This record gives sequence, C-alpha cells and structure tokens, in this order.
Amino acid sequence: MDLRALTDRLPAGAVITDPDIVAGYRQDRALDPGAGTPVAVVRATGTADVRETLRWADDHRVPVVPRGAGSGLSGGATALDGGIVLSTERMRDIRIDPVTRTAVVQPGLLNAEVKRAAAEHGLWYPPDPSSFEICSIGGNAATNAGGLCCVKYGVTTDYILGMEVVLADGSVVRLGGPRLKDSAGLALTKMFVGSEGTLGVITELTLRLLPAQPAQCTVVASFATLTAATEAILAITGALRPAMLEFMDSVAINAVEDEMRMGLDRGAAALLVARSDAPGEHAAQEARVMVEACRAAGATEVFETADAEEAEAFTAARRFAIPAVERIGRLLLEDVGVPLPRLGDLVTGVAEIARRNDVTVSVIAHAGDGNTHPLIVHDPDDAGETERAHRAFGEIMDLALTLDGTITGEHGVGRLKKAWLPDQLGPDVMALTRRIKDALDPHGILNPGAVL
Amino acid sequence: MDLRALTDRLPAGAVITDPDIVAGYRQDRALDPGAGTPVAVVRATGTADVRETLRWADDHRVPVVPRGAGSGLSGGATALDGGIVLSTERMRDIRIDPVTRTAVVQPGLLNAEVKRAAAEHGLWYPPDPSSFEICSIGGNAATNAGGLCCVKYGVTTDYILGMEVVLADGSVVRLGGPRLKDSAGLALTKMFVGSEGTLGVITELTLRLLPAQPAQCTVVASFATLTAATEAILAITGALRPAMLEFMDSVAINAVEDEMRMGLDRGAAALLVARSDAPGEHAAQEARVMVEACRAAGATEVFETADAEEAEAFTAARRFAIPAVERIGRLLLEDVGVPLPRLGDLVTGVAEIARRNDVTVSVIAHAGDGNTHPLIVHDPDDAGETERAHRAFGEIMDLALTLDGTITGEHGVGRLKKAWLPDQLGPDVMALTRRIKDALDPHGILNPGAVL
Ligand SMILES: Cc1cc2nc3c(=O)[nH]c(=O)nc-3n(C[C@H](O)[C@H](O)[C@H](O)COP(=O)(O)OP(=O)(O)OC[C@H]3O[C@@H](n4cnc5c(N)ncnc54)[C@H](O)[C@@H]3O)c2cc1C
Ligand SMILES: Cc1cc2nc3c(=O)[nH]c(=O)nc-3n(C[C@H](O)[C@H](O)[C@H](O)COP(=O)(O)OP(=O)(O)OC[C@H]3O[C@@H](n4cnc5c(N)ncnc54)[C@H](O)[C@@H]3O)c2cc1C
Repeated sequence: MDLRALTDRLPAGAVITDPDIVAGYRQDRALDPGAGTPVAVVRATGTADVRETLRWADDHRVPVVPRGAGSGLSGGATALDGGIVLSTERMRDIRIDPVTRTAVVQPGLLNAEVKRAAAEHGLWYPPDPSSFEICSIGGNAATNAGGLCCVKYGVTTDYILGMEVVLADGSVVRLGGPRLKDSAGLALTKMFVGSEGTLGVITELTLRLLPAQPAQCTVVASFATLTAATEAILAITGALRPAMLEFMDSVAINAVEDEMRMGLDRGAAALLVARSDAPGEHAAQEARVMVEACRAAGATEVFETADAEEAEAFTAARRFAIPAVERIGRLLLEDVGVPLPRLGDLVTGVAEIARRNDVTVSVIAHAGDGNTHPLIVHDPDDAGETERAHRAFGEIMDLALTLDGTITGEHGVGRLKKAWLPDQLGPDVMALTRRIKDALDPHGILNPGAVL
Repeated sequence: MDLRALTDRLPAGAVITDPDIVAGYRQDRALDPGAGTPVAVVRATGTADVRETLRWADDHRVPVVPRGAGSGLSGGATALDGGIVLSTERMRDIRIDPVTRTAVVQPGLLNAEVKRAAAEHGLWYPPDPSSFEICSIGGNAATNAGGLCCVKYGVTTDYILGMEVVLADGSVVRLGGPRLKDSAGLALTKMFVGSEGTLGVITELTLRLLPAQPAQCTVVASFATLTAATEAILAITGALRPAMLEFMDSVAINAVEDEMRMGLDRGAAALLVARSDAPGEHAAQEARVMVEACRAAGATEVFETADAEEAEAFTAARRFAIPAVERIGRLLLEDVGVPLPRLGDLVTGVAEIARRNDVTVSVIAHAGDGNTHPLIVHDPDDAGETERAHRAFGEIMDLALTLDGTITGEHGVGRLKKAWLPDQLGPDVMALTRRIKDALDPHGILNPGAVL
C-alpha cells in the first residue's frame, strides 16, 4: 500500500512502519492469537492528525483500529492485516477548571494521570478500573469503563459531559460541553461512550469531577464457602450503598498471595473487600453494619480498618488479581454481569461449568454491582485444554444470559465476545445497531469486526 | 382519512375522533398557538397498540406525535394537522423489585406515582421535575427531565437502566435491563432518553432506585441584589454538593406570594432555597456552611430548618413559580443553562434584554447546576408586546450560547427552540443528528418538526 499520501499529511514521525515497533501494536491485553499485522501505526499528535488519517483511510477504504493504551480485555484494539492502528498515546493535554469542577483532556492521558491532575485541585475523578495506571481516558470512554467505586459512583459515562470526536469521513464534531445539564438535541455524547471505536475516534473529553472523596473505612472478610460470601454481598447492598464491594475466590486469593505475600487467608473460599466513604463517623458506622453482615453470613475472619495505607494494600491486592492469575496460565477473561440476587447462581454455575469442562476458572468480581470476571486459565499449547476453555467461555456467557444478565458489564464486546452479542440483544437490536453503524460509517472503516 | 384499518387493529375505544376530546390533545403546556388538529387520538392500552399504530402510520405516512401527560414546555407534543396523537396515559403498570432496587414501569404513570410506589418499599426515585405530579415517567424519559435534586442526584438518564421502545416501523426492541452495568453493544438506551419522541415510542422503562433519602436540612435566604444571590450560589457549590439549590427572582417571589400568602420577603431581589441531605448531623453542618455562605454574600435574611413540613412549604413555593407567574400573563418559557461561573452574567444579561425589549422577564432557576428558566411575560392580544417577547426569547438563547451555555437544560428543544438548535450544535452535529434520524425513521413519521 502506498502510504505517501498519508505520510505527507502528517507530522514527521507520526506514521510508523518499522516492523519491530508495529509488532507492539498488534494486540491488546486480550492477546488475541488471530491478531493481524497493520501496514502502519499512526501516533497522532492532535485532532488534525486524526482527521487527516480518517480522511485518507475513508478515501482508500483502509480499516482503522483506534487504540488508547492497549489494556483492553476484549480484543477491541486487535490490529487487522492491511489496516492502520491509530494510537492516541501522544495526545496528552489536560486542563482542570476547579470552579466548574470539570477537566478537558485529550484521550491519551492515563486514567491515573487524570486522577492525579484532579487531586492537585482537591478534586476527584471517580471511575477507577483496576488498570487505572495503564489505561487511557480515551479508552475508558470508548469502553465505558467501570471499576471498583462504580457500585456507588457510577461508570465512565456518568462523568462525561462532552467530547470532540472525529467521524469516519474525517469530520470533527463537538458534542455536549461543560454544562451539568444539556438537553439540546440527541444524547450523542452518551452514544459515543462505549462505542469501542466503531463510530468515531474520541479526540477530547470534558469530564465532570467531584470534590475529593471523604476518608474511608474498609472491611475485609474471609468466607469458607462461596454461598456465605454472596449472602454477605446481598446483605450489605440491602442495608446501604457501599463505596466499594469486591470479591476474590480462592484461586485468586492464592495467586495474589503467591506474588504479594501479605498474609491473605489461603484457606478461604472467598474474600470480600468492602468500603464506606460516608462522611465523618458514618463511615465507621457503615463499616460496622458491613462487619455484622459478614459475621451473620458466616465469615470466618473479619477485619476493619480506617487506615488508608492498610486499606489500599487490600484494594491493590484485589486490583492485582488479573495479573496474578495470569501467571498460572493464559487467561480467557469473562466480564459477565447479573442482577445482584442472581450472583450466587452465577458463581455456583461457573464452578459447575469449570468442573464439567475440566478447566480452572477463578472468579473475581465487582460484586456490589453484580459484575464478575471469571478467569478461565488454560495452557495455549495444550489444544484439548484450549478447546475446553473456549467451550467454558461460551457456556459462562450463556449462563449469564439465562440469569437475565449481560455478556459484558464493563470491558466491552470487542472481537472476543461478538459471537454472543446477538444472543443478548436479539435480531431487532442488532439490526438497529447496524443501521446506526452504517449511517455513521458507510464504508465500514472504523474498527471493522469489533462489536458487530 | 380512512381510519378503519387502524381502528380494526386496536381495542374498542382506543381510537378517538370526537372533536371535543381531540381538542384537549392539541397542545402541551407550551400552548403553541400554531398547534394543528389531529385526525385522531390513540390511547394505547399496551405495547401492542403502539406497535399497530406505528405500523399503520408508517405504511400510510401519517405523522405521529407521542404524548405523555402533555406537561411539556417546548411544544414537543404539539399536535399536527392530519396526524395522530399517540397517548400513553392508559399504560400504567408498575412493578418494584426491592432486592435489585429497580422498577419496571409503563410510560403513562406519573412521576409522583413512581415515587410513591418506590416509597412503599422504602426506596426513592430521585428525579423530581417541578411538574412531578402532572408529568408522565415516559415523558420524563423522552425529555431527559431534570428537577430540583439533580444538582446532586443527576437527571432522568442516570436512572434509566433499560427500556422497551417501538420504532417507526412498528418493531419492538428491548434495550438494557435490570443490570447496574452493561457494556453489550451501543448505548442505545441512553440515545433514546431525551429523543423527544423523534426516534421511537417508549413503552416500558426499567428504573434504578436508591435507598430512601436521608433527613434533610433546608436553608432559605433573601438577597437585596441578584449579584449577591449568584455569589452565594457559587460559594455554596464551591464548598459542598447541595441536594438542592433553587433560585427565584423578585417577580416570581411576588407572584408566588400573591397566591400562597406564606410571608415571602416581597422586597427581596432574589430568594435561594438550598438543602443538604448529608447523613445524620452532617446535614445540619452543611446547612450551617450554606447559611454562612449566604451571610457572607450579603443575604438580608437567612432561615434554616430541619422540619420537613416547613421545608416542603418553601420547595412547593419554588415549584409553584411557573404557574404563579403564568397568572400575570402568557409565558414564553426559557430553559437556558450555563457553566456555573457564568450564572451571574446570564442573570444580569437577561435583565438587560428585558429592559431593552420592554418586557417583563422573571428568572427562576435550578441554580446549583446553572439551569435557569427566564419566563417572558406578555399579553398575546398585544401584537407589539408579543413581538418584543419573541425577540427577547431569541436574544436570551443567543446570550446563553455566547456564555458557553445551552438553549435547553432540561425541557428539550421541541418545536419552540428548534430554530436555535443549529446555532448551538453547528452544521456537522446537525447533519449527524439527521443521519441518525433518517436511519431510524426513514419516512419521517415520528414527531416530524420537533427538534429537527
Ligand atoms: C489488569 C487489568 C485490569 C482491568 N480492570 C478493569 C476494570 O476494573 N474495569 C474496566 O472497565 N476495565 C478494566 N480493564 C480493561 C481495560 O483497562 C479497559 O477496558 C480500558 O478502558 C481500556 O483502555 P485503553 O486505553 O487501554 O484502551 P484500548 O485497549 O487501547 O482500547 C479499548 C477499546 O477502545 C477503543 N478506543 C481506544 N481509544 C479510543 C479513542 N480515543 N477513540 C475511540 N475509540 C478508542 C479501541 O478501539 C478498543 O475498542 C482491565 C485491564 C487489565 C489489563
Ligand atoms: C409547572 C411546570 C413545571 C415544570 N418543571 C420542570 C422541571 O423542573 N424539570 C423538567 O425537566 N421539566 C419540567 N417541566 C416540563 C415537563 O413537565 C417535562 O418536560 C416532562 O418530562 C414532560 O412529561 P409529559 O409526560 O408531560 O410529556 P409530554 O409533554 O406529553 O411530552 C414531552 C415530549 O416527550 C415526548 N414523549 C412523551 N411520552 C413519550 C413516550 N412514551 N415515548 C416517546 N416520546 C414521548 C413527546 O412527544 C414530547 O416531545 C415543567 C412543566 C410544568 C408545566
């Protein structure tokens, strides 16, 4: 392919074809073995570069895979043979306005960097995927990322007031803005959030910030059975709105303990990490309610702390669960969610699927909102096990759907889960989605093969 | 027009052509004098009736104006000559699930009825437009209604987890569901919220509920100047997140006092009603901060109460402001919003526009989120004044746009504000909106002339 017309329109060095560098952009953290090799990676330095790249790609019908930091777990940023990977990593400006409590950021900034910039003004950007130190804010918007505090504070879409987005034909549109309420026209901002690079490339975001989070109390509880743990979860969410309610099963506990040596109870079937950030002494009061709920559900050990550092160690342990389990073997990563009362059915059903298919499945969860991550461990060099792992992967999504759940709570559909999307949405919603996709990207250049 | 084919598909009595009854469905609360006369009103009894009506209308290219309770202020439910008004008023089922804290409701139920049903389970549906006793939950979803508690608790879209919607061609789709997090496919639920009947007819909603709101402390403060009041607003929102922060100017104060005789300070230039619902004694603490902020800004009188009934009297007074000012004359109702620091500029700018055009403009506001309702009072029988009122109407929207604001914060564009929408969105976003509209409603039967 002749890239000169593209190279000519972009700053020197923006178009990369060096195979060694390009190779680093073939996969995201889903590590899709079927990833293609792109003809080039474009590292955009600003909106104009994105516009020029899309204009060129649309004219030449070249597929473009938008990419933030490549931490995605659904293969949404998997490269395509003959395509372009369009990376936002160099678009890193941020402006904070403490009076309107808003931030205007370019997509390439990491979530953790946004949080830090906000904190310098005494402000807080709540959404906190476990990957917050390695994922971009643009990727967060494109996947509508969740995280640990979402059970009380909502997901990424709840913090996006406006955006600039470049459409497939290269036209640049500004949606929403620094207004807390805006009913002018269709809710297009919300439609681009979570669109996984299939409708446009996000080049700027206007984020809503909150006052700094109050001091917190954290509760850590171990359980001898999964059922006891899920009962405690229901009891806690029935009594109050926790600021965090996380779950790890025994495989995850042991994998994390192997790496971090922090004294987690290796014999426990499940661990909960719960948190209250109610003001003043109410945090401690809520923590006491949570401690009681865990005890009543039969917790074998319950521990409570108001010490931020101590609490952070347990939160970090939970955040580290995916990389820790990854050290046992290659992962197929689920993201199924169910209405909270079905959580017990989901967790026991997953155990049954693991047993039946003879694979190890570790379950970790943002338990408070019913969003679980069964991690299917397998050896990619063992064809039989790999096949059983893939079978379990599908069965877990089927199970979630029978429990009135979703195949993805926060990671998105990407390429890995798209075969199951029609089962969840049905033909009419698929057709509706297709109509919108075709209206916005008639030549199908934006992330083809993702989601749809 | 031959309505038999329609009448045959619907239950007896669903299609109304009696001119006296039909006349009552010509206008919403915008009282558009240009409203048309529909050929019939369909009072749907369920989703099937909506489906059949849209199929018929799409086949025969008959415009359909969806209608909830007709309390809209933008002419979104203004009837069209030769069209159908499709009313949801008979679709009134509700089911509450206290465990998942969700409600599944049909669109015709009033907002107040949803709140009451939730309260029976100790739960709370936060969105609270001032019209909550006379507007439907379907209309709330279709306009993404705001209200008084939105400054802390967000708007309607934040509480909609899923919906059933009938598209222009009569196909029925279910979007989202009772899951707190769901990233499967495009965020279509969010796109239909606020679409003002132009993309589909909402036939069912799945709502997220919260635990009952804690006890509250309310602060009422009078100010001798508008500037002092807007300074107090900024000081309050800079210090904490109020659960309510409402504003009334002198015209509104006097109009309400004329009707309610509750002892409001008739000499004040502005009144603020602010509220904290922080847990326990923190509400009183926050109230004290707000009292101090008002005093520091120069409030002439400040009053604080933890008594729910007393507080409700002031909230009711604020809610009653639109009907009260309506008794002075016909209203042209604005809904402009600005980033909070520009609120002072907006309020003084509106006063200047009123003076220049020699019309009375009363400003009331959901001040905490920068959303104001300048009410332009005029005598419809006085052609000169009516013309000046309309000129002021446009100038106020122009002013909001120069202040980086929106022409509508919560009421929607409807028919009254659509001439100004391109000024806010620009040609590219208008074109994008049109592409989506055409993809979903190729024959343009759904609420033609609204928004676009
Ligand atoms: C250890 C670990 C823990 C994780 N924990 C969580 C968690 O708790 N919650 C959670 O939600 N996710 C989690 N993730 C998944 C991942 O971090 C998120 O999906 C994140 O939002 C992806 O951001 P990214 O910048 O890495 O995006 P990428 O992986 O680069 O891309 C993700 C998708 O967004 C698209 N995209 C990226 N940038 C743009 C843009 N500017 N415009 C348009 N489209 C774009 C891509 O095409 C792709 O479809 C975790 C991942 C890891 C590795
Ligand atoms: C005194 C007063 C105070 C008000 N205060 C507020 C306030 O504080 N905040 C606020 O946001 N609004 C306020 N409003 C405006 C109004 O009440 C809201 O816009 C409300 O959401 C409209 O609901 P409705 O059922 O009356 O809808 P309608 O007026 O019947 O319709 C409104 C729009 O929604 C469409 N629509 C209605 N139902 C459906 C459906 N099922 N499917 C698809 N489209 C549909 C209509 O076509 C129309 O475009 C106020 C109105 C009055 C009269």
